[in-house]
Amino acid sequence: MNSHQKFKSDIEIALETPLLPIQQIANNHLDLKEEELELFGKYKAKISLDVLERLKEKEPGKLILVTSTNPTPAGEGKSTVTVGLAQALNKLNKKAIIAMREPSLGPTMGLKGGATGGGYSQVIPMDEINLHFTGDIHAITTANNALASFIDNHLHHGNYLNIDPRRIVWRRALDLNDRALRNITIGLGGPTNGIPREDHFDITVASEIMAVLCLASSLDNLRERLSRIVIGYTYSKDPVTVADLGVEGALTLLLKEAIKPNLVQTIEHTPALIHGGPFANIAHGCNSLLATKMATMLGDYVVTEAGFGADLGAEKFLNIKSRIGKLNPSAVVIVATIRALKMHGGLRKDQLQQENTDALIKGITNLKKHIETIKSFGLPYVVAINKFVSDTEAEITELLNWSDQEGHPAVLCEVWEHGGNGGVELAEKVLKIIEEGENSFQFLYKDEDSIEQKIFNIASKVYGATGVQFTNKAKKQIQEFEFLGWSNLPICMAKTQYSLTDDASVLGRPESFTITIRELKGSLGAGFIVALTGDIMTMPGLPSEPAALNMDVSVDGKATGLF
Amino acid sequence: MNSHQKFKSDIEIALETPLLPIQQIANNHLDLKEEELELFGKYKAKISLDVLERLKEKEPGKLILVTSTNPTPAGEGKSTVTVGLAQALNKLNKKAIIAMREPSLGPTMGLKGGATGGGYSQVIPMDEINLHFTGDIHAITTANNALASFIDNHLHHGNYLNIDPRRIVWRRALDLNDRALRNITIGLGGPTNGIPREDHFDITVASEIMAVLCLASSLDNLRERLSRIVIGYTYSKDPVTVADLGVEGALTLLLKEAIKPNLVQTIEHTPALIHGGPFANIAHGCNSLLATKMATMLGDYVVTEAGFGADLGAEKFLNIKSRIGKLNPSAVVIVATIRALKMHGGLRKDQLQQENTDALIKGITNLKKHIETIKSFGLPYVVAINKFVSDTEAEITELLNWSDQEGHPAVLCEVWEHGGNGGVELAEKVLKIIEEGENSFQFLYKDEDSIEQKIFNIASKVYGATGVQFTNKAKKQIQEFEFLGWSNLPICMAKTQYSLTDDASVLGRPESFTITIRELKGSLGAGFIVALTGDIMTMPGLPSEPAALNMDVSVDGKATGLF
Repeated sequence: MNSHQKFKSDIEIALETPLLPIQQIANNHLDLKEEELELFGKYKAKISLDVLERLKEKEPGKLILVTSTNPTPAGEGKSTVTVGLAQALNKLNKKAIIAMREPSLGPTMGLKGGATGGGYSQVIPMDEINLHFTGDIHAITTANNALASFIDNHLHHGNYLNIDPRRIVWRRALDLNDRALRNITIGLGGPTNGIPREDHFDITVASEIMAVLCLASSLDNLRERLSRIVIGYTYSKDPVTVADLGVEGALTLLLKEAIKPNLVQTIEHTPALIHGGPFANIAHGCNSLLATKMATMLGDYVVTEAGFGADLGAEKFLNIKSRIGKLNPSAVVIVATIRALKMHGGLRKDQLQQENTDALIKGITNLKKHIETIKSFGLPYVVAINKFVSDTEAEITELLNWSDQEGHPAVLCEVWEHGGNGGVELAEKVLKIIEEGENSFQFLYKDEDSIEQKIFNIASKVYGATGVQFTNKAKKQIQEFEFLGWSNLPICMAKTQYSLTDDASVLGRPESFTITIRELKGSLGAGFIVALTGDIMTMPGLPSEPAALNMDVSVDGKATGLF
Repeated sequence: MNSHQKFKSDIEIALETPLLPIQQIANNHLDLKEEELELFGKYKAKISLDVLERLKEKEPGKLILVTSTNPTPAGEGKSTVTVGLAQALNKLNKKAIIAMREPSLGPTMGLKGGATGGGYSQVIPMDEINLHFTGDIHAITTANNALASFIDNHLHHGNYLNIDPRRIVWRRALDLNDRALRNITIGLGGPTNGIPREDHFDITVASEIMAVLCLASSLDNLRERLSRIVIGYTYSKDPVTVADLGVEGALTLLLKEAIKPNLVQTIEHTPALIHGGPFANIAHGCNSLLATKMATMLGDYVVTEAGFGADLGAEKFLNIKSRIGKLNPSAVVIVATIRALKMHGGLRKDQLQQENTDALIKGITNLKKHIETIKSFGLPYVVAINKFVSDTEAEITELLNWSDQEGHPAVLCEVWEHGGNGGVELAEKVLKIIEEGENSFQFLYKDEDSIEQKIFNIASKVYGATGVQFTNKAKKQIQEFEFLGWSNLPICMAKTQYSLTDDASVLGRPESFTITIRELKGSLGAGFIVALTGDIMTMPGLPSEPAALNMDVSVDGKATGLF
């Protein structure tokens, strides 16, 4: 949100906002019972899973998914619109709740800027949410690395499962940006120090345990999913699972608190469940299913978001999360920004501040493709034009006119600057399409389709590709996965977020292209097959001047330099 | 506590105990104000450091240190006696509080048994305390590894500080037992993935940041200590500090919640501050100074403990923590068990269950040496004989008779079986020696003594050694440390806990021996020089059948198989 620099900074706005005690949010807005709430300080709480049982007969609230066009590297403000829309629904006296992802600490140390919305549409306390929060990610890190230690301990003490150390696919994890840990060798130093082998650290949000936690429907289901995780292969190339190691109980124990959704509030005291945050490329990029389900039980309207653009986040929300969790989304909000559309129209990053309606019109093709995608899922939608200070009157008019002519519902949205008041028109439009719009929600592939067919459906219907190429390696893996009985799982596409193609530099709406599947990975715990179109970076690095250099704590114990 | 197996297990006792809401403990026992408490669930809370300011004029409570003879590998029940003694003081209507260390999660996954006392003298909720607790250790892990990532990022982006990658002494850390991470190579995979170098993971409690947190007197002092940490040396062998990297603010930010002491309760609802848990060999092995100070402000009697036996934990509590924190301990309880004394008398582990008064008498020499040590510090003491079910009447009588004849106050203590009621006699004796006993507390060396002199004083007065040998490496380091102006720091001895010598197999009370200092390490953030007498394992491994195999969560969400 750098273009808003003449306004107050996000942390300034957040720190000057008087927070309500979280019990008050829980009691007044959500009718939670006292014993269902576990406080974490004054403004954060965990909610007991007992709520799901108590409210299981209740008619679920309407689920509204917020997605976007292919984003610029700075992001288009999807979280800000998510928060602002829920605040606006509250202004219209609707009982609205947010369900969103928890930010990772690693990137916070690297680049200025969090993932908790911005301006007057933020979740708070944003400093704590961006740092340790309620410890869920730390618990996942611990479970991830405990599993790694059990694997290496098994090798060290005789390896009776016959695990091939060269074929261990379970990697270690830290919630930090740390490029030096991407490729390491471990177990050095002689016989008392383990078996030497190659290993890798991922950032914790890329751990399959994060995806598992986010798709689990209960504590028992969490244990089941954990036990199915494939950690590697034997010398005879048979998969070895967590259940084979017998540690699914210990991992469940390490996650028994982390599985409970976290309650916080927005600047306008709208309740927000913030829980889980898996990668949106090698995983499905949505907050936990439990938080979403719980939100639909506690509110009449739930605003949730999915990572990156509609080609990744929304596709996975609809094809994976909704399938596994039996969710029925009621509407989709597609966030578009003038700057992103101008970039899709051919402008360079340093040209985005200047008015350019030609580039805008040219770039609208990208938005149009995402609209078609949402239509193919059978869902009603609204385009939310998230206003930036650099946007000109002429550009906004141009975009609204285009929407009008093409018959797409579109609304200018000023939630960053005005909070809920800046999103009332959007909220009204969303309510209208939910009431009137036709909803014939469908998945884009069936469970029983072949792996190739599922990938082709996504590539053609969502990306607009004419075909899919598979490397020899990928072809061989598909055969193996079919043999192992994994082929009825949904597909989780790992692709660049910047382009509809598998090439980050191809913007706008490309035509007549194919995508290449280089490799597949079975995430059996999460319950999907990851299809990789290229190298996906699962451990980010820090910039030469990390944001950490400016961070500190003030004399009154407040975070400074965080944003 | 394996010899108590005919009784209920620790977790059974803990789970059947009705806990009081932690606010009730805070209000009724400690007169804490509501705004000074931050709840973590229903039975854990953090206490604001503002309490230190509010109560700074208050006469501090009496500080009672619990230590022991050289222990057996199973431990002698120091934590159990600490908890039991405080409970007993409460029974005598004294306002008593416990200040103790937080257990590390790593060993919990490996061997059955926690570090939260036992039987009817436990701190609860023991499952949570032994797992993630309030996230302090996770915050330390994060700060430790964030620092490591900043170092490698600095190397990657040009290394303008001229750090020699071969002389980086900062190591990564995880709160797990993971031998395969003891010796690793990082930064592999080509130019985009960092600078290749050798690295090591320690268990988090061995991180200097744990020692720093435990010796900090305020948030500002924490930042100061963090900035002094030496992370390595330049190619010209000059020390490089956290301040040189400019990240002390970010590390302080990551620790701003972890620095606040945690409040829980015992089985009998005695308040307990559990905060910090540094290693007792390469660090000083005591809970945080802030928790101890705060406890002395909130209670009239504070029962605290130090790691391992009196030769390590108590020596460091008295020479290091009391010096840095200006503490004035009032009395020392020396825990002795019949089994440990019989082991010191020459019995093997498998012979300890049998009555053997001869071995007992022979082994008493070990206890006698620790009594002399406490006397040399000028402190009154009581010997607490911590009763185990295998102890016979004859053995107990023999030990009590010996104490009587030699004029040492000694009490049989049954706090495991009977809680506070089993420690009333001990509590009365402790109160008596505080009132009557002579207290001429003194350190065993002065700040301005040379490094060699300090080490000699500890070795001769505490271990009973006739002399100290220094390797050539150690001699050279002493010269370097003197040149760097570090020689006025206290000494933190890293030595085996099983023997008064530096050889774990030499039990009892050895005479005419020397100890060898192989190497020194400057812990400038913690504020001490570590003197290593041998290889100290700073990353434990898991056994072939780790305790994790039995762990799980019950249908009602409770930990099972943890103990």
